[in-house]
Amino acid sequence: MPHPTFILVNPQLGENIGMSARAMLNGSVTDLRLVSPRDPWPNDKGLAAASGAFDLMPAPVVYTDTASAIADLQYIYATSGKLRHMTKPVLTGRAAAADMAARVAAGHRVGVLFGPERTGLENHDLMQANAIIQFPTNPDFPSLNIAQAVLLVAYEWLMAGDQTPPRRFDVTDSPPARTDEAAFLLHRLENELQDNGFFTAPHLRDPVMRNIGNMFRRAEMTSQDVQTFQGMITALLGRKKKG
Amino acid sequence: MPHPTFILVNPQLGENIGMSARAMLNGSVTDLRLVSPRDPWPNDKGLAAASGAFDLMPAPVVYTDTASAIADLQYIYATSGKLRHMTKPVLTGRAAAADMAARVAAGHRVGVLFGPERTGLENHDLMQANAIIQFPTNPDFPSLNIAQAVLLVAYEWLMAGDQTPPRRFDVTDSPPARTDEAAFLLHRLENELQDNGFFTAPHLRDPVMRNIGNMFRRAEMTSQDVQTFQGMITALLGRKKKG
Repeated sequence: MPHPTFILVNPQLGENIGMSARAMLNGSVTDLRLVSPRDPWPNDKGLAAASGAFDLMPAPVVYTDTASAIADLQYIYATSGKLRHMTKPVLTGRAAAADMAARVAAGHRVGVLFGPERTGLENHDLMQANAIIQFPTNPDFPSLNIAQAVLLVAYEWLMAGDQTPPRRFDVTDSPPARTDEAAFLLHRLENELQDNGFFTAPHLRDPVMRNIGNMFRRAEMTSQDVQTFQGMITALLGRKKKG
Repeated sequence: MPHPTFILVNPQLGENIGMSARAMLNGSVTDLRLVSPRDPWPNDKGLAAASGAFDLMPAPVVYTDTASAIADLQYIYATSGKLRHMTKPVLTGRAAAADMAARVAAGHRVGVLFGPERTGLENHDLMQANAIIQFPTNPDFPSLNIAQAVLLVAYEWLMAGDQTPPRRFDVTDSPPARTDEAAFLLHRLENELQDNGFFTAPHLRDPVMRNIGNMFRRAEMTSQDVQTFQGMITALLGRKKKG
């Protein structure tokens, strides 16, 4: 599947290149380009920080300037913490990922620029971008380091195309209980409680049983849970279950 | 504003505690608890890795076991890369953040458990959680380190309550051009091109002007851009603008 190209402009620390590669690959982005990194690439610290990511993606290509690094691309986003008085759309990371997905689906090649650690992207790099990506962050602590910014863009890119249901269920050996299993348990419990004097006043019986019934529904018992509960009642009653 | 509590269970490296604190604070989460960290806390590497985050959030409280670290909380999420045959809902990070927001809005205190670097959370910790958070990631490279997982949960938490418009505009001194300014430019351009023999065949004039008009609309010119363009036409015609 086509995906965006990520371009790190003048990254300083090799570790950050490696951590960015790892973060990209988490989001299935594998095309990494470097513009004049301060630490020569490849370097050992950077490779170690990638945690094996480079075994599953091409080696980054190093360019001397931003213009050559983006020459073959068609639409460019620039990540920037600050706005710089440029007439461009400013997208949240989520909106940018949806925008990228639409452009990539049309067969266009898109790229994302990330600036150096201390200063961020300079104006001449921002000018080459079609749009700015700015992540909402805590206004009192907005600093995202380069690998964090890469992770968030890659994550939003992955999520833009992801089909995982928001809520699933862990695989278990026992299926959810049928309604009649749970109703039978509740019915038996009510009878045993009645026989053992649990309901001190007759008018409490209905509201108490409603609360218990609601708790049982919230517990979303499995078939096994219902059996376990039946066994607990039997045990507490002091009657041994037969064979 | 109330927010979730993050609990790092048996973290190994002090740096990861510091980087997690930084990532939390980016998402406006400030309540950090540690369960038996391997590197004693506080430690210098961890404080350095926090990049000043601890100046803006309380010092982490250290507990000896998970049960005491979550004792005062009411609903617990556990981050886990693997499912472990437990009957629990499994939420994406995004769905979990929406779920947290609903619970926090009801005044409930919620917590998120993060496991140690190599092994993740053990079964006895997962058992204490109400729900599992599992991030969709690249199936070929699913590894998220602890600070990355913390960043993604904190980011989704922030986004669940964030009101930033998905698309905004960078602040500029010049407002977008009025439609009549742009129409006047296009009209003048068409006349000058006609006078200078640009349209080699009469039937090309309309489609060519439609393409140019579409390009102008896509450019979303500012008022200043229209003036600049008018000046360029004048210059190219070889006529000096007066005054």
